[in-house]
Amino acid sequence: MVEAMYYSVDPYMRGRMNDAKSYISSFETDKPIEGGVVAKVIESKSSDFKPGDLVFGRLPWRLQTVVAVIGLQSINAIIAPASYYLGILGMPGLTAYFGLMDIGKPKAGQTVVVSGAAGAVGMVVGQIAKIHGCRVVGIAGSDEKINILKSDYEFDDAINYKTTPDLKKALAQSCPNGVDIYFDNVGGEISDAVISQINFKARIIVCGQISLYNSSEIPTGPRLQPQLLSHSALMQGFIVSDYQNRFGEGLHQLVKWIKDGNIKYMETKLKGFDQLPNALIGLFKGENMGKMIVEA
Amino acid sequence: MVEAMYYSVDPYMRGRMNDAKSYISSFETDKPIEGGVVAKVIESKSSDFKPGDLVFGRLPWRLQTVVAVIGLQSINAIIAPASYYLGILGMPGLTAYFGLMDIGKPKAGQTVVVSGAAGAVGMVVGQIAKIHGCRVVGIAGSDEKINILKSDYEFDDAINYKTTPDLKKALAQSCPNGVDIYFDNVGGEISDAVISQINFKARIIVCGQISLYNSSEIPTGPRLQPQLLSHSALMQGFIVSDYQNRFGEGLHQLVKWIKDGNIKYMETKLKGFDQLPNALIGLFKGENMGKMIVEA
Repeated sequence: MVEAMYYSVDPYMRGRMNDAKSYISSFETDKPIEGGVVAKVIESKSSDFKPGDLVFGRLPWRLQTVVAVIGLQSINAIIAPASYYLGILGMPGLTAYFGLMDIGKPKAGQTVVVSGAAGAVGMVVGQIAKIHGCRVVGIAGSDEKINILKSDYEFDDAINYKTTPDLKKALAQSCPNGVDIYFDNVGGEISDAVISQINFKARIIVCGQISLYNSSEIPTGPRLQPQLLSHSALMQGFIVSDYQNRFGEGLHQLVKWIKDGNIKYMETKLKGFDQLPNALIGLFKGENMGKMIVEA
Repeated sequence: MVEAMYYSVDPYMRGRMNDAKSYISSFETDKPIEGGVVAKVIESKSSDFKPGDLVFGRLPWRLQTVVAVIGLQSINAIIAPASYYLGILGMPGLTAYFGLMDIGKPKAGQTVVVSGAAGAVGMVVGQIAKIHGCRVVGIAGSDEKINILKSDYEFDDAINYKTTPDLKKALAQSCPNGVDIYFDNVGGEISDAVISQINFKARIIVCGQISLYNSSEIPTGPRLQPQLLSHSALMQGFIVSDYQNRFGEGLHQLVKWIKDGNIKYMETKLKGFDQLPNALIGLFKGENMGKMIVEA
């Protein structure tokens, strides 16, 4: 039996609320939502875990849960705060690492644009790109986010899409050599603007489309194929679970960067189980900086 | 001095008539159009070529041209008809080979859909996919094309997009296991229908967008990123010149398949230099089966 300490609240959960075939099954009505949870062991009939141990699991949104040992992973709160296993040392950190490294293939001197730059994935993408010597430009939705990205996270530039009248023009100024890698967390018109600025052989990582997840109709926009064709560009959908057999490699590298002070991390923590719905809705309003978490 | 025998007429030429930055420079006004030409040497000051030799070059649309030796490539009309060096043994054949093999990565049992299936590239794509044990479905614009693809080119199925009321439904019937590889020569609504049927980890080769080349406004359509994301799918722009240093490998394989009887080829030949404009316009009306060529 485990007791939840931190619940992960993530944009992909919105997709599980649709009745549509996808890479992950839909949530079932009249059953609890499930997601990443950091929990403390209360009672154990297994020799693998003892009361007080901290674990990570994909667990139901419940205060206490009885769960099979096979669904739990031991976590080490000495390396980093326990909640980091929902963020930088969990799914969002691994998403940033494998998406950027495996599809983006950053090279020193290239320009990387990341949307949702102040989110759980985006801020890690930007820092990994900086480690690789790239020029990094973030797109986010408030001046507070923009300031933090530039001052604390060393982004070369950051653009507030909500207050910038002409995003294409702003991007052209921030990316004087064009865009080599676009790490897309949001989709929609922000992505249209970035994709209009890509260089030959650009790589576009389609990691999230948060601006579209609440659409009730099929969203339309400019057709992208002519732009991809004329630039020999690649656009690839990214799902972190495709990299499951390489998670160890990713975590090893992320832990090293954190220990060496090369990567910082941020969380937005709401307090109390009953904040879970607000936290999820808040994601779609951009209310979080870094990882959105609910503390039990 | 060379005398043109066969002029290659290709969809990409339309793009060179726009005043837009692309992977290949725009045509200049008051200068002849240039493109792939098979020609016969008339006079030669070089020991590399003698009168009567057949050559391929990117040459102006002129009956006779004086050209530097460095721009010419010797061709061997014993292996295949000389005009094949504009098609199956030229840019279209190499496009089919590298696009399908390098981006598509066909595996036995997978389903490959190709649009523009009766064109210079499409019919080669389908046959290479068949060689690799794939189910192959072509999309083309006339019943004559459909019949030839199915009876002479052994496509498993072919769909006439001009007479099919519901393309998505027709594709679902022709591709009961979904679409693993989409080789796209045409773009637009045909591609929307195919992309709606892709499987997890599908590969989309964006090779041509002939349905859009004459658009004067930016074409719009359903946003593709959500579909790419939920299927971990890859979409990549393909330009054959990116593979220049591997042309030898491609030609070697294509020659072998032709000799072994594994690949057939077709041409639509218009006769006379003054047919060049009609040939180019005809491409956009789908008047060709196989490679569009003008014989001098």
